[in-house]
Amino acid sequence: MPPLSDHSPLALAQALIRCPSVTPEEGGALSFLADRLSRAGFSVERPVFSEPGTPDIQNLYARIGTAGPVLVFAGHTDVVPPGETEAWTHGPFSGEVADGFLYGRGAVDMKGGIACMLAATLAFLDRHGPDFGGSIAFLVTGDEEGPAVNGTVKLLDWAKARGERFDHCLLGEPTNPDTLGEMIKIGRRGSLTGRITVHGRQGHVAYPHRAENPIPGLLRLASALTADPLDGGTAHFDASNLEFTTIDVGNPATNVIPASAKAVFNVRFNDDWTADTLGAEIRRRLEAAAGNAVRFSLDLQPSNSPAFLTQPDAFVDRVADAIEAETGRRPALSTTGGTSDARFIKDACPVIEFGLVGRTMHETDERVAVADLDRLTAIYGRVLDAYF
Amino acid sequence: MPPLSDHSPLALAQALIRCPSVTPEEGGALSFLADRLSRAGFSVERPVFSEPGTPDIQNLYARIGTAGPVLVFAGHTDVVPPGETEAWTHGPFSGEVADGFLYGRGAVDMKGGIACMLAATLAFLDRHGPDFGGSIAFLVTGDEEGPAVNGTVKLLDWAKARGERFDHCLLGEPTNPDTLGEMIKIGRRGSLTGRITVHGRQGHVAYPHRAENPIPGLLRLASALTADPLDGGTAHFDASNLEFTTIDVGNPATNVIPASAKAVFNVRFNDDWTADTLGAEIRRRLEAAAGNAVRFSLDLQPSNSPAFLTQPDAFVDRVADAIEAETGRRPALSTTGGTSDARFIKDACPVIEFGLVGRTMHETDERVAVADLDRLTAIYGRVLDAYF
Ligand SMILES: [Zn+2]
Ligand SMILES: [Zn+2]
Repeated sequence: MPPLSDHSPLALAQALIRCPSVTPEEGGALSFLADRLSRAGFSVERPVFSEPGTPDIQNLYARIGTAGPVLVFAGHTDVVPPGETEAWTHGPFSGEVADGFLYGRGAVDMKGGIACMLAATLAFLDRHGPDFGGSIAFLVTGDEEGPAVNGTVKLLDWAKARGERFDHCLLGEPTNPDTLGEMIKIGRRGSLTGRITVHGRQGHVAYPHRAENPIPGLLRLASALTADPLDGGTAHFDASNLEFTTIDVGNPATNVIPASAKAVFNVRFNDDWTADTLGAEIRRRLEAAAGNAVRFSLDLQPSNSPAFLTQPDAFVDRVADAIEAETGRRPALSTTGGTSDARFIKDACPVIEFGLVGRTMHETDERVAVADLDRLTAIYGRVLDAYF
Repeated sequence: MPPLSDHSPLALAQALIRCPSVTPEEGGALSFLADRLSRAGFSVERPVFSEPGTPDIQNLYARIGTAGPVLVFAGHTDVVPPGETEAWTHGPFSGEVADGFLYGRGAVDMKGGIACMLAATLAFLDRHGPDFGGSIAFLVTGDEEGPAVNGTVKLLDWAKARGERFDHCLLGEPTNPDTLGEMIKIGRRGSLTGRITVHGRQGHVAYPHRAENPIPGLLRLASALTADPLDGGTAHFDASNLEFTTIDVGNPATNVIPASAKAVFNVRFNDDWTADTLGAEIRRRLEAAAGNAVRFSLDLQPSNSPAFLTQPDAFVDRVADAIEAETGRRPALSTTGGTSDARFIKDACPVIEFGLVGRTMHETDERVAVADLDRLTAIYGRVLDAYF
C-alpha cells in the first residue's frame, strides 16, 4: 500500500491493480477507492445490485459538494480475466513497473484511468478545498466487463431515485488507439444481434428430393444481408457494419441432409438507425431474399445499445483544450469502437470519454506508460480547473 | 425355431429376425445361415476380420458345387439399431406376423432377402440335387450397416486369395420403392465427401478492419459450388448432386469475429466422373471463386464409392424376365439411391441388385408383406432355373 499521502496516479493505480477484481469480484478495489474518497471529504455509498441468475455486484457512488454544476467521473474497477498467468512478463496482479511501464490487468482498462481521476481530484481538492463552487461525483461499477446488468444501469436508476442530477460526465475508458491525446469519444455506434434459423426437412443425401436442405437457403439469406451496405455513414459516424459471427448446423453425418441451419450476426449501427428501424430493414431484406422458397425465423435480441452522439459543445471543447495543452495535439472527436457504459449515462447527462491508450487492453502484458498516467492526471486536473 | 424341413421364406426370415444382430453383433444370424447351408451340402467358412479401432466382424462364405458357372447370392445379416423399442407395434426382434406382414428390424433390409435366397436355393437343390451344372455361393457379411471395413471388401479379398472366381452376383438389398418388381439396380452413383475450411483472423466485431471474417468467404465458396450443375446426367444415371451437410463455426460470442469457418459437403456422382476428376473440378471451382480474397483448405475424404454401372446384358434380362413372370411388371433398370456393397463386388464380377420393397427400412415398424417373401423366393428360384 502506498502511504495515504501519496496522491501519485502510479501509486494509486498499483494499489488498484493489486486488488484481484475480476468480474464479478470486488477484490478490494472499490473499498480502496471508497477509503480514499471518504478521507478526502466525499460521502460514499456502496450499493449492491442483484438480479436472478447473475452474481450480486458491488458498486460505488461518491459525491463531494451540494451545489451545481455536478461533474461526474465514471468508470469501472472490474477487469477481464488475466488468461494464462504464466504468459505475463510481470504478474497480472503484481503492479510491477519495468522500463517506464506499469504492468497489470486493468492498467489501461481502466484502473489506470480511475487512478488518474482520483489523483486529479485529490490534488484539485488540495488546491481549492471543499468549496470549489460545485460538486464532483464518482460513479464506479464492478460490472462493466461482465453481463453489465447489475452495474451502471442500476447505479444510474439508484442515483436518480435519490434525486441526484448531473451536468456532465467524463468516462475514463481507454479511448486512444496509440498515443495519449489522439481521441475523444463523443458517441458510440449501436449494437444489434440477430439469429436466423432456416427450416428444412431432414433426409438422406442420396434422396435429396425427399428432403429439403436448409443450407442453400441460409446461404441465400446471408448473402442478401451482406450484399449492399446498410448506409454510407453520417456526419459523426462511420457506415454501419454487419458481421456474421457464427453459422452452425451441427450435423455430424456426412450422408444426412440436416433439418435446420442457424446463423448469428451482429450489426454496429450509426445514428441513421434505431434498433427498431434497423431490425425492420433486416427483416425486409431477408423476406425479399426468401420469397416463398426459404422458410426462416429471425430472432432479434433486444438491444440496450442504441447509437448515440453527444453533440460537440463547450464541455467537449474544454476537455479537448486540456488535452491539447498537455499533449500538444488536438484530439479527434470519434464514435468508433465498441459499446461502453456511456450508452446508459447519456440518458442522465452529456457524456464523453477520454482515457489512456487502449492498445494492450484485455491482452497479456496489459500495461500503461507511467508518463501517460501523469499526463492523464494533469489533463483531468485541467478539466476540473476549467469546469469550476 | 421352425422345423428343419420348413423351407418357407417366412419361417427362415422369422428365425433370422429373432437373432439380435445389430452391427457389429453376429447375434446368431450367421450361425443359423451356416447351419442351414451346411445341412444342404454347402461347404461353409466363417472368416472373422479385424482392423485396429473397429470391432471384429464375423462373415460367411458358403459354396456348393465345384464347376462353373458360379452364381453368387450376396447380402448382410447385420441390421441398424431398432431405435425406440417401445414405439414398435410388434417387438423389433419378435418376428411377429400381423395382417399379412412380418414385422422386425431387418424384415426388408435385408434378412427377408437373405431368407428368400436361402429358401429358393434349398428348393432348387431339392428339385435338382447337387449336380445342377455349376456352383452357387453365398457371400454374407455382418458389417454392411456399420463402418463396412471388416465386411464385404475383406471377404472378397479373402475369397480371391482362395482362388474363388465368380461369374455373376445377385445382391438382395431392398431395391423396390413401393411395389415388388418395380426396380433392379444395375449400378450406383459414387459418393465423395469434402471439407472446406476458410481461414480468417479473429477479432472484435467493433473493429472489423483489424479482423478478417471467414464467413463471407465461406458463403462465396459454398455458392460457387452450388451455382452450376455438375453435369446433366448420363444414359443410365441422374445428374450428379452436391449437398452441403453442415456448416460449423462454433463461435458462442456475438461480439467476436471468428478465426475460421468449416463446411462439409457430399456429392453423389454419376459415371461422368471418377472421385479424382470430380475432386479436381471441385477444387477448380473453389479456387476460381476464392481468387486472392479467400484463404481456404479443401480436404477430400478418400472415396471407396466410385460410380459404377453393370451394362445391361443377358444376365440382367434373365433376372428381369423372372421378375416379370412373377409380378407381371418389367422392372426399371436404375442407378438411383445410396451406395451399397455392390460397389465392392463389381470388381469381382458383374453384379445387380434386386430385393424387397425398401419403404420401411431403417424405420420403426420395418415390415415385409408375407406375400412378397413368397414372390421374391419364386423370382430367385426362376433365376436359378434359368441360370443353370
Ligand atoms: Zn473498460
Ligand atoms: Zn442393406
